[in-house]
Amino acid sequence: MIIRDKPGLLQLLFSVRGSVLPKILPRVAFVTAFAAGLVWVDLNVLRLPHTNAAPFAVFGIALSLFLGFRNNAAHDRWWEGRKLWGKLIADMRSLARDAEIFVPDRADRHRLLTLALGFIHAHRLNLRQLPSRAAPANWLSEGDLKTPHPPCTKLNQMTEVVAAAAPDGFARRALAERIGSIALAQAGCERIATTPLPYVYSLLIFRTTYLYCGLIPFGLMDTAGWLTPVFVAIMAYIFIGLAEVTEELAHPFGETVNGLPLDAMCRTIEISLAPHLDMPTPAPLKADRFYLS
Amino acid sequence: MIIRDKPGLLQLLFSVRGSVLPKILPRVAFVTAFAAGLVWVDLNVLRLPHTNAAPFAVFGIALSLFLGFRNNAAHDRWWEGRKLWGKLIADMRSLARDAEIFVPDRADRHRLLTLALGFIHAHRLNLRQLPSRAAPANWLSEGDLKTPHPPCTKLNQMTEVVAAAAPDGFARRALAERIGSIALAQAGCERIATTPLPYVYSLLIFRTTYLYCGLIPFGLMDTAGWLTPVFVAIMAYIFIGLAEVTEELAHPFGETVNGLPLDAMCRTIEISLAPHLDMPTPAPLKADRFYLS
Amino acid sequence: MIIRDKPGLLQLLFSVRGSVLPKILPRVAFVTAFAAGLVWVDLNVLRLPHTNAAPFAVFGIALSLFLGFRNNAAHDRWWEGRKLWGKLIADMRSLARDAEIFVPDRADRHRLLTLALGFIHAHRLNLRQLPSRAAPANWLSEGDLKTPHPPCTKLNQMTEVVAAAAPDGFARRALAERIGSIALAQAGCERIATTPLPYVYSLLIFRTTYLYCGLIPFGLMDTAGWLTPVFVAIMAYIFIGLAEVTEELAHPFGETVNGLPLDAMCRTIEISLAPHLDMPTPAPLKADRFYLS
Amino acid sequence: MIIRDKPGLLQLLFSVRGSVLPKILPRVAFVTAFAAGLVWVDLNVLRLPHTNAAPFAVFGIALSLFLGFRNNAAHDRWWEGRKLWGKLIADMRSLARDAEIFVPDRADRHRLLTLALGFIHAHRLNLRQLPSRAAPANWLSEGDLKTPHPPCTKLNQMTEVVAAAAPDGFARRALAERIGSIALAQAGCERIATTPLPYVYSLLIFRTTYLYCGLIPFGLMDTAGWLTPVFVAIMAYIFIGLAEVTEELAHPFGETVNGLPLDAMCRTIEISLAPHLDMPTPAPLKADRFYLS
Amino acid sequence: MIIRDKPGLLQLLFSVRGSVLPKILPRVAFVTAFAAGLVWVDLNVLRLPHTNAAPFAVFGIALSLFLGFRNNAAHDRWWEGRKLWGKLIADMRSLARDAEIFVPDRADRHRLLTLALGFIHAHRLNLRQLPSRAAPANWLSEGDLKTPHPPCTKLNQMTEVVAAAAPDGFARRALAERIGSIALAQAGCERIATTPLPYVYSLLIFRTTYLYCGLIPFGLMDTAGWLTPVFVAIMAYIFIGLAEVTEELAHPFGETVNGLPLDAMCRTIEISLAPHLDMPTPAPLKADRFYLS
Repeated sequence: MIIRDKPGLLQLLFSVRGSVLPKILPRVAFVTAFAAGLVWVDLNVLRLPHTNAAPFAVFGIALSLFLGFRNNAAHDRWWEGRKLWGKLIADMRSLARDAEIFVPDRADRHRLLTLALGFIHAHRLNLRQLPSRAAPANWLSEGDLKTPHPPCTKLNQMTEVVAAAAPDGFARRALAERIGSIALAQAGCERIATTPLPYVYSLLIFRTTYLYCGLIPFGLMDTAGWLTPVFVAIMAYIFIGLAEVTEELAHPFGETVNGLPLDAMCRTIEISLAPHLDMPTPAPLKADRFYLS
Repeated sequence: MIIRDKPGLLQLLFSVRGSVLPKILPRVAFVTAFAAGLVWVDLNVLRLPHTNAAPFAVFGIALSLFLGFRNNAAHDRWWEGRKLWGKLIADMRSLARDAEIFVPDRADRHRLLTLALGFIHAHRLNLRQLPSRAAPANWLSEGDLKTPHPPCTKLNQMTEVVAAAAPDGFARRALAERIGSIALAQAGCERIATTPLPYVYSLLIFRTTYLYCGLIPFGLMDTAGWLTPVFVAIMAYIFIGLAEVTEELAHPFGETVNGLPLDAMCRTIEISLAPHLDMPTPAPLKADRFYLS
Repeated sequence: MIIRDKPGLLQLLFSVRGSVLPKILPRVAFVTAFAAGLVWVDLNVLRLPHTNAAPFAVFGIALSLFLGFRNNAAHDRWWEGRKLWGKLIADMRSLARDAEIFVPDRADRHRLLTLALGFIHAHRLNLRQLPSRAAPANWLSEGDLKTPHPPCTKLNQMTEVVAAAAPDGFARRALAERIGSIALAQAGCERIATTPLPYVYSLLIFRTTYLYCGLIPFGLMDTAGWLTPVFVAIMAYIFIGLAEVTEELAHPFGETVNGLPLDAMCRTIEISLAPHLDMPTPAPLKADRFYLS
Repeated sequence: MIIRDKPGLLQLLFSVRGSVLPKILPRVAFVTAFAAGLVWVDLNVLRLPHTNAAPFAVFGIALSLFLGFRNNAAHDRWWEGRKLWGKLIADMRSLARDAEIFVPDRADRHRLLTLALGFIHAHRLNLRQLPSRAAPANWLSEGDLKTPHPPCTKLNQMTEVVAAAAPDGFARRALAERIGSIALAQAGCERIATTPLPYVYSLLIFRTTYLYCGLIPFGLMDTAGWLTPVFVAIMAYIFIGLAEVTEELAHPFGETVNGLPLDAMCRTIEISLAPHLDMPTPAPLKADRFYLS
Repeated sequence: MIIRDKPGLLQLLFSVRGSVLPKILPRVAFVTAFAAGLVWVDLNVLRLPHTNAAPFAVFGIALSLFLGFRNNAAHDRWWEGRKLWGKLIADMRSLARDAEIFVPDRADRHRLLTLALGFIHAHRLNLRQLPSRAAPANWLSEGDLKTPHPPCTKLNQMTEVVAAAAPDGFARRALAERIGSIALAQAGCERIATTPLPYVYSLLIFRTTYLYCGLIPFGLMDTAGWLTPVFVAIMAYIFIGLAEVTEELAHPFGETVNGLPLDAMCRTIEISLAPHLDMPTPAPLKADRFYLS
């Protein structure tokens, strides 16, 4: 995630870090060159059929409708991913507090919270599909990572601790509910990670965008002349740029510049649980060149 | 569901798998041919009444409004269906953990979870209206499938196990709440499956789409000439294509290419419950030619 | 509610059942005749002031904004009504299961569920403002229906059974929470039934629609000539049709073709509760000429 | 709140009760007169600069965006206010039922419910900022109304009754949760009442509306001539009317014609609680000339 | 937050307090001057390429789409922030009432609520990133503020009081759930404060806005002449103004004029808790020149 103050005018216009421009430049250039070629042919070789801009109005409305929908859907996925992780942070803190209240034995509490930290890292690895070697050795063992579903394995181990350490029905209920709440947020994250936006939208949107950018020169040449490629470039920047942004936001757990900072949030949880584990508090992660991983 | 990486340019333009194009091609062709016929008549036989594109602007806005609404409503149904199944996955895992904590007897636990797996398959069969022979014999018996509502039958059987096996009030409360939570997600799925989008919208939208595609040549012929059928083809592709996509998404439990992968999610639940049932973990389902059933 | 497969092309264009066309035909005809009259006067009697279509663009945007808002609000009311009834179905099933777990005496359980079925029918009668004679005699007595608020009366009677039959605090808590959850869904339905969309919107929308349809001929006559009444007819169909549809959807508990099938849902609940009451399972309601009441 | 059947054509066009027209007439007249003046000057005195309607297209889109946003936000506040009161109605009924189940002593129950009715009236007075003399003497004493926050005072008194009268932990938990749920709905209502829509939107919207209505004659005069003031009047009616409607809906607890019927809802609660208090059931409030207070 | 009655006509047009105009004036002036310069060059020096307004239609739609999305997202953040604080207010009041019911010892109760007030102030300081010297000394000690995360520290201290003072499992469950609910709202606020809207949107929106304002003179000059800078000024006011407003609303916990009144809400909580702490009730905060901090 890019963490940056409100940009000034110069930054806005020339900032590259965090912008999609570098990624889409070839496609924008291609579309612009195509438009310029059409204008050149029209002026020098052979008069092409012209049309006014009216048919493009509805075309543009449809395109806006598609992109508006996709943008909302992608941002909702991103924001829901963040909400679920926010819930996980709160649940982890509350698990530690519930343990203070309901689990009398200090060693049991430490075991439970250690497993919880293992869970959150296993969950992060699972969402980002990272290899086992990316796992922090102090929280996750080799054996954990070889099970079919490591985050569930850790939650099952936490369940065993609760079954053994809870002194009465109240404690069992409180801790079982907390683990259930964590499992619900976990399943929510997995839902977002495994269920992309329907593929058919990608086809519809990209096809419509390219058709639009390829045909609009016929509607603009008459009045805009050599300004035509400029307009086409801007529209390609807007439409292809937005399509690209939504592609990143729709996968909020990826390691892209617009992905959620899972590493930093795992660290936040470690900081919150440190006093309950009688451990030194680690330092929060800092953004590196505006990027927080 | 189609599982596919972000498509490249060529795939985007020529991909057929997962596209609605094959399904709507006859209708698009018909509308395009009609437009071409009008242009031919206009140029060679008899001058038809022409109009400029202005009246179509509002027409197009209304059409966008309808399609935008329908698209949002359909996608919401699809995504809510997925959310409910995500909740079922989480509830199934939590049921297994609750059983570990609250049910002392191992055989009772196994009975409960076996019934739960029967429930989830009966629920899947019910949502997809599959015949009994599609039922997995190890989880569902002939007798189960002959009851008036097999998923409810399985939940009732689970209730009997809980009533008999729960050692105290805490256990009864915890397991009854979990079954209630499963029943709520089940009823949500049945709501989506049995309550289509109001039929009147289908009529309004399809009628408006065909009227629009049939009339717009009168507005374009003047300026676009023989480009008219091209524009009509594109608009028909966009509007009929979107109408078709929303039709599929509005029935998220169907076995269409855009339906939800219920088989794969049932398998995910089997994988999650395997360690609690001391069973070998089955392999996750894989997409077959990008399609996950 | 209309239950119908995806309509074919012919059905789409000529279907009357479920369409709003018959209802709005007089108004559409009136507006169209007015437009035809204007064109006739303009061509034969006296040249009327003409204007181009530009001022209607913003007009149309405003109209779309109103209709889009109203459409969303109406559909949300309809879908929320369905959600609340889905929740009632789930709660009724869970009440039966909770009773199996928490109420030891079979006769008490039967009493509780009989009252629950009385509640759901009283709730249906109340929402649809049906007379007492529409009440099913096996679930609702004359006396019940004479109380100031029959659904609340039945819930109060259920409360008395719980207070008398629950053996311990766990049972009291579980059943009281279930009744509270039912009461919440009930109050939600009553909210929708008693609080219409703000009246002022009806005025704004209908006035704007008629002004628009009455003025647009002045903007179209120049270019569209005798096609003007055709366009006006289509726009009147779209705008008045949508206003009419939203009127029906905004009252989801009415007995209109787009109302929710409360009778069928009450039957679904009876089917679900039959095994718990040791009664024969009734048959589900079927749609009659595509209409499910 | 206006309670009225679907209006007929005549009512729609000439209804004044519930319409915003009387309130905005001076402003609409002023804007219209200004436009008429411009046309007169243009035709008779001095040719003003003309422009076509194109620049107003985007202007109009921006205005629609503002008004659409504000309309949605205002209606959401209104509907959320109604939802919270619906929840209060359900919670009050459930409180009465919980008391039947968990509080063994009839006098304690009566005390609790009497305080609850005091709370709901104190809450209503607080939301509407009514003076003490508007308080119903049978539910609220002078002393109650002199405390810093009367609704909280009543909830605190209810808490004291619960602390004294609950026979066991189950009862304490059930009643404390119910009071907490009531307090949550109360805080939600206070949130809506004390936090208006950001003031800056009012400025942006009103300024844009007046600028638009003041400038659009320059774009219409050319083609619309003396129809210009008619169009301006209609647009002013739509835009100022909508701004005014949203102003009322954004304050849902006010005593305006579009405000929520808090008096009637308090009466609904009194009706629901009467049988639990062994009191005669009061009559429901009726709309007075279509207005329900 | 600006607290002000519905503004009159004069206030609307000339109000500065609460308006974004002063902040964006330089940028609006710059864009306007650029447009005026272009018109001057076009008329006096060298005829620039002209285009009609059609290409700007789609451009404007895209811009509206961006701004509409951003406006909704920013307002949602602001309103969600307010909802979370409303929930905190309700939870604080309910915590005090739960303590009355479940904690028998008065000193324990006072300790718990004193810590709770410390939490809410620490939470406010944390959200606003205020220095320690801004902390109210009666609720927060030096030591508290030196811990890695002061709000969590206070919640941990509250947990310790609960673990020590709760007499039975019911009390432990009730108070642990309340603290968990507070922690959830706290994490929600921290989510909003630490996760800005994706940076890439800022780039896309600002770049598109400036490109639009810089290019639109070429489309307007032909018909609008010297009215061009007027239109450009208005559009710049609308688009840059909205971008600025959303920037403020997207950071709801800042101390801007549109930020949420955290100070006033902390005071509301102090007022609500005063009777439970047997303390004199403080006066509510008042707006200072319409501004409530």
